[in-house]
Amino acid sequence: MEGPDAKGLIYHVTKVLYKNECNVIRQDEYVSPSGQFFMRTEFESADELNPEKVLQDLRTRVPDERIRFRTNAKKKKDVVILCTKEHHCISDLLTRFHFNELDANILAVVSNYDVLEPFVSKFGIPFHTVSHEGLTREEHEEAVFKAIEPYQPEYLVLAKYMRILTPNFVEKYPNKIVNIHHSFLPAFIGANPYRQAYDRGVKIIGATAHFVNNDLDDGPIIAQDVKRVSHRFTAKDMSREGKDVEKTVLTKALKLVFNDRVFIYGNRTIIL
Amino acid sequence: MEGPDAKGLIYHVTKVLYKNECNVIRQDEYVSPSGQFFMRTEFESADELNPEKVLQDLRTRVPDERIRFRTNAKKKKDVVILCTKEHHCISDLLTRFHFNELDANILAVVSNYDVLEPFVSKFGIPFHTVSHEGLTREEHEEAVFKAIEPYQPEYLVLAKYMRILTPNFVEKYPNKIVNIHHSFLPAFIGANPYRQAYDRGVKIIGATAHFVNNDLDDGPIIAQDVKRVSHRFTAKDMSREGKDVEKTVLTKALKLVFNDRVFIYGNRTIIL
Amino acid sequence: MEGPDAKGLIYHVTKVLYKNECNVIRQDEYVSPSGQFFMRTEFESADELNPEKVLQDLRTRVPDERIRFRTNAKKKKDVVILCTKEHHCISDLLTRFHFNELDANILAVVSNYDVLEPFVSKFGIPFHTVSHEGLTREEHEEAVFKAIEPYQPEYLVLAKYMRILTPNFVEKYPNKIVNIHHSFLPAFIGANPYRQAYDRGVKIIGATAHFVNNDLDDGPIIAQDVKRVSHRFTAKDMSREGKDVEKTVLTKALKLVFNDRVFIYGNRTIIL
Amino acid sequence: MEGPDAKGLIYHVTKVLYKNECNVIRQDEYVSPSGQFFMRTEFESADELNPEKVLQDLRTRVPDERIRFRTNAKKKKDVVILCTKEHHCISDLLTRFHFNELDANILAVVSNYDVLEPFVSKFGIPFHTVSHEGLTREEHEEAVFKAIEPYQPEYLVLAKYMRILTPNFVEKYPNKIVNIHHSFLPAFIGANPYRQAYDRGVKIIGATAHFVNNDLDDGPIIAQDVKRVSHRFTAKDMSREGKDVEKTVLTKALKLVFNDRVFIYGNRTIIL
Repeated sequence: MEGPDAKGLIYHVTKVLYKNECNVIRQDEYVSPSGQFFMRTEFESADELNPEKVLQDLRTRVPDERIRFRTNAKKKKDVVILCTKEHHCISDLLTRFHFNELDANILAVVSNYDVLEPFVSKFGIPFHTVSHEGLTREEHEEAVFKAIEPYQPEYLVLAKYMRILTPNFVEKYPNKIVNIHHSFLPAFIGANPYRQAYDRGVKIIGATAHFVNNDLDDGPIIAQDVKRVSHRFTAKDMSREGKDVEKTVLTKALKLVFNDRVFIYGNRTIIL
Repeated sequence: MEGPDAKGLIYHVTKVLYKNECNVIRQDEYVSPSGQFFMRTEFESADELNPEKVLQDLRTRVPDERIRFRTNAKKKKDVVILCTKEHHCISDLLTRFHFNELDANILAVVSNYDVLEPFVSKFGIPFHTVSHEGLTREEHEEAVFKAIEPYQPEYLVLAKYMRILTPNFVEKYPNKIVNIHHSFLPAFIGANPYRQAYDRGVKIIGATAHFVNNDLDDGPIIAQDVKRVSHRFTAKDMSREGKDVEKTVLTKALKLVFNDRVFIYGNRTIIL
Repeated sequence: MEGPDAKGLIYHVTKVLYKNECNVIRQDEYVSPSGQFFMRTEFESADELNPEKVLQDLRTRVPDERIRFRTNAKKKKDVVILCTKEHHCISDLLTRFHFNELDANILAVVSNYDVLEPFVSKFGIPFHTVSHEGLTREEHEEAVFKAIEPYQPEYLVLAKYMRILTPNFVEKYPNKIVNIHHSFLPAFIGANPYRQAYDRGVKIIGATAHFVNNDLDDGPIIAQDVKRVSHRFTAKDMSREGKDVEKTVLTKALKLVFNDRVFIYGNRTIIL
Repeated sequence: MEGPDAKGLIYHVTKVLYKNECNVIRQDEYVSPSGQFFMRTEFESADELNPEKVLQDLRTRVPDERIRFRTNAKKKKDVVILCTKEHHCISDLLTRFHFNELDANILAVVSNYDVLEPFVSKFGIPFHTVSHEGLTREEHEEAVFKAIEPYQPEYLVLAKYMRILTPNFVEKYPNKIVNIHHSFLPAFIGANPYRQAYDRGVKIIGATAHFVNNDLDDGPIIAQDVKRVSHRFTAKDMSREGKDVEKTVLTKALKLVFNDRVFIYGNRTIIL
């Protein structure tokens, strides 16, 4: 739950759970310097839980809060992956999904090229090629949207999808699109960040997973990681090493998102 | 607080605080797989707080728990530092203390050599040399104890104190002695760990800050960190680089301890 | 090349290359504290190189050295992978091989279980199940050897092969077997290292890739990496996180080995 | 040495050393993608070395190269430190200097405030306060220059000197000024980077040590390091943690510079 801080919020929530015979397994709170209160509470119930009643009780005690309430029934998130030609992120996700280690169901893969179709098909997942050639950006997005929509995904994962999305498209999936950016944001925004990193002679490169809002490179950051490089690394070497970081960071961010551990607050994330 | 897990513990504690007009600033809980419950609650009160009453109320609600209760009145911990000849850890602590950035008052330094006396004296801190020469281990410890005791420290910090303490001494400061070990424990226990690391050809070295119990290298770990090395590092190079890690790790661990964020549970620490 | 240090070694080698119209692209040397000299020289030749002559010239100038000489002709190493049931290391290697990003040809996979056969088969690589059931260790190893031998591999990769190899087997592939150990060696040798790490309450876990000699956990270390954990990690969590480190470390070590950058010196590696 | 790549450079240099009875201890080369050749050779001589002759011989063989030649005679570099009010970088340098662990002599400290004078004086080092109040930037720099010049330093270290230097001043110390920047460059250029980092919600912060050329934040990068942060870090927390990174990075960079291991090539550094 999330909302303006007030006295007794934890008390009120834990009282409701206590009265409903629920046992708190894990609870984390955070109050921002600006006075916004965030809390994530995992609880279990030995008896048959009546989620409707718990939620109703909660609303009585913390009426003006934004409460997100989930029963365990549906655990894995449904996702559609968008990609272009690079395989390093999607192959890691597909492998984890194949071995049942991803907290999500990959329903389909949509790409503007067919390059990865043979690989994706090995995993028995539908692959939709929606070429952008000869189409305006809007027309292409409309076609992509039509490919995605039948799957009714809870999240879109941009696993190296190299096209910029319009605000119009992004608004259809508010706070539901996760992108992996090939740079330690906010450094090196834009195209060819590894060439920029080489030219600048940096000693560390990185990658950033973030939600997509209107500006492709500028949504709330979920996870970042870095890797040391040296003068011996060419721009191509940096790109190759950077891919390993991108893969790791995207997987880590998705794990947090799929486990409902990420709150968005302005342009920042709170991870509880 | 700490004790066996039970339903409603968070509820009971937050109720007491709510009824006493206290506002929770930060609260963290952890339940171990074995069912031990840990909770750390920071709260503030606009009005004059009656800590006696709050504590009494808490004891009524969670009667069988171990409650540690601190009012803000006395914030900085009183510590005595023990060292031998190496300066890298103590110089960092003294500098932070000098600039009022340490959450502790360094009351005195006790050493079995006088090597560091000139340096420590620059900071206006009493330095006691208690030589071990010609003394049995027990006699020396007795003398060290006599040098420490007048200061009534809350914590002893072993900032590269190179002598093994007997169980008899350790028992006088239960869970109150913090040591920095020059190795990534449990690897390379014993003397000359950097020589051992060199001989084994490791690619990463580390350091470990831990509480001291009966076995010098084996108390609950508070913090660890590591650093990459290569075949080019001699044992001496590893030692020099290792010192930077030791310094960082000890400072980090002490910050956690001095802020009452560390719970000891068996041979492990819970950091909330 | 490798051998006792002597004056002029670099001079003699570079003279031979210069006289043979070769241009040094990259050269790295290392002299150990004990006086052993290691040098790795990459060079190219615009004209048709006569490698026989270069090698003969080199032998004249540095007669008592161990010279390893490779022409570029055959670049990718031939390898056979051994595994048991866990997929995280082998899936990363197979994916990189599939996309032509591994400096090796994976000729076959041999396992004592058939669990990974369906996955490996997706990549069109022969999979040999050699069950150990009902066999003595020696009999099983003999069967494994028979499965491997037709492929004449240059390296064996133990990608989570959970059986201990006898000295007899190891001697057949001297300095040619790379293992990934699920621990930051030398800590937590033996079975179930993540359980040991949990019990000890460590704040950092790691993995180690090393050559296998007679003692499974004790060959020359090629690469290591670590990851922070906290008291919240159960032994199972540590194991899951550890797998990501294992995967990364094995891939990194193999890249160094397959590019002929690793020298073995006693129980240590020199990486040039 | 440094210059355009050519066949036989290593051969020519090592020949000169061999003929002069010198033994190479360590040699590292690097050829940039653009064809610039860099080599750093450490050598020793059992007999009395005639450095003039060696240098003359070297010039004969590699006439058009830029050769930097140093005899061991004078090892420690002479430096003057500039600072403002923050102590974390300068205290680390002073402590290492005091214990003879810095490869430099700190000749004096110059500051635009007298805040750090008492601390610096403990170490017996001259402290010059050159206030900028009531002066133009040019006048102040002229006064700073006059304070520095009598010491004839080989390097200037900006240990949190918070004033921008004019090109006119920088040109007096070409490639001789090392700065520590409180950010992971190129991110968050300008004032208050930790506030920027907080506002952007980054998960990693960093620091950068670099040579100063005309643009304060834009000279060749020598070293960088990073540290993980979370949503719990306020801008002030980030600043405090960032200081530890700044200290570490500056010390590391200076060690490389003072050991003549850093080559500058355009806007990049080559570290051999």
